[in-house]
Amino acid sequence: MPEDRIRTVLEDLERVLLRFMRHHGISHQEYRRATGLLLASIRAGEGSLLLDIFLEAQAADTGNLGRTGSPEAIEGPFYVPGAPQLSPPHILPQRPDEAGDILVFRGRVTGPEGEPVAGVELDMWQADAAGLYSNVHPGVPDWNLRGCFRADAAGWFEVRTIVPPPYEIPKGGPAGRVLAAMERHVFRPAHLHLKLRHPAYEALTSQLYFRDGLYLESDVAHAVRPDCIASLVRREGRAQLLARGLDRPFFEVRHDFVLAPRPPAPPVAGGGRLAAPPARTGPEGRRP
Amino acid sequence: MPEDRIRTVLEDLERVLLRFMRHHGISHQEYRRATGLLLASIRAGEGSLLLDIFLEAQAADTGNLGRTGSPEAIEGPFYVPGAPQLSPPHILPQRPDEAGDILVFRGRVTGPEGEPVAGVELDMWQADAAGLYSNVHPGVPDWNLRGCFRADAAGWFEVRTIVPPPYEIPKGGPAGRVLAAMERHVFRPAHLHLKLRHPAYEALTSQLYFRDGLYLESDVAHAVRPDCIASLVRREGRAQLLARGLDRPFFEVRHDFVLAPRPPAPPVAGGGRLAAPPARTGPEGRRP
Repeated sequence: MPEDRIRTVLEDLERVLLRFMRHHGISHQEYRRATGLLLASIRAGEGSLLLDIFLEAQAADTGNLGRTGSPEAIEGPFYVPGAPQLSPPHILPQRPDEAGDILVFRGRVTGPEGEPVAGVELDMWQADAAGLYSNVHPGVPDWNLRGCFRADAAGWFEVRTIVPPPYEIPKGGPAGRVLAAMERHVFRPAHLHLKLRHPAYEALTSQLYFRDGLYLESDVAHAVRPDCIASLVRREGRAQLLARGLDRPFFEVRHDFVLAPRPPAPPVAGGGRLAAPPARTGPEGRRP
Repeated sequence: MPEDRIRTVLEDLERVLLRFMRHHGISHQEYRRATGLLLASIRAGEGSLLLDIFLEAQAADTGNLGRTGSPEAIEGPFYVPGAPQLSPPHILPQRPDEAGDILVFRGRVTGPEGEPVAGVELDMWQADAAGLYSNVHPGVPDWNLRGCFRADAAGWFEVRTIVPPPYEIPKGGPAGRVLAAMERHVFRPAHLHLKLRHPAYEALTSQLYFRDGLYLESDVAHAVRPDCIASLVRREGRAQLLARGLDRPFFEVRHDFVLAPRPPAPPVAGGGRLAAPPARTGPEGRRP
């Protein structure tokens, strides 16, 4: 980010917040309660949750304007880099008695022309049946329901996990108390988190929601976008169970991703990347 | 704070911030850098410093509109309740070889009519000669240069401490890096922090700055107000040293405080305090 943009944006943020405080006559006591809540939220392990609930979807939407490929979704506060690398058949790390219905999530990753993104890495994380994230909330084994795996040469991937429940922001925590004061509920619809990475394509942070799920229309984070919703299908046929070595019905969801090619590296001597994004060698130009 | 005010303010804050993000086209990556910096600042032990630098003075000013008595100053991020109770002669806890010039700080605390606030408690904290705060920065003994003491029956107080240096926001920390990106310096003028408490008066959070000190005109926190500046006077007369049992010259600063009487408690069944502040039994009314 070029320095003049940082300065311009931060100076305007200062102006906007001071104007807001004057407009509402925010008292010293109110200011201290607000900063105290923000600090308490971070110290309670909520990470950037309190900000993400209100603001992250707008940032993601901005990035999606004019974006080729699948839209980016919010990352949320609970991503942890360094999840275990899985080998096929891919099964997210989980406890022997992991609660929740079995979920098989499969799909294909391509570029904008439909070409397979061979060997693309998927980095996936999700809540357990109690709504808890490993490496964040106590009582969950490290890396539970977190893992990295690769698609095959044709861009196909498949992973076995559990169907997550709607995510409930802890009611007793600072973020939950802010939402209560605003008379909003504390739920996000059930979702899987994903990051996709390949050297020749732009990285993508995505989420997958389930059609007809609770809170799809009233997500507390206002972050659901139609392109990130897929249907859960219940599978109970004997052949389908046998094929996957399962002894009970499971759910299947299919969702494909389209990655945007990585733009050519900017010339070394050029300005900052955000100041003057390098012109793409337009795919439109190649079409007749 | 009544619930409808909390909701109104928070909803407008959300609106203002989303509008700001749209206006500047804040990208997902930029949003994540910003939340990452805020989290890093808090995790680095800077408390609310990053917010206080930019915003707290405005909140204090709002509280000072129409305030009777001495103006409130910013509290800053480093107040810690529970400092040691001192007995006269009051000397802030310090190391045997505490660096810095000796400072004798004295003054009187009265109500708006000049009546002494007998036995008012002063809770004082400050940086050491290296600019570090005890109980916050490592390497400083707990409660160093922090203490609570009382004025006498006539409202007079006196305490011995050291002259603090200008406060330098750590350059290497997240708040320092934000200021560097904005091309601002990282200094606050030298200051003492105080909280004054008495059951019959409103509590006051104050700061004392020193006339002609560095950064008085360019405080990075924009928080210096004329009523909070007093002159350091150097004392080196033999009698003056003897009277205080000192063997080297010292500085003296005098500053008085005026506390506002505590308003009568609101009726139990009434609305929230901020919605309808209780009418003071107007002192104006008592005057002819």
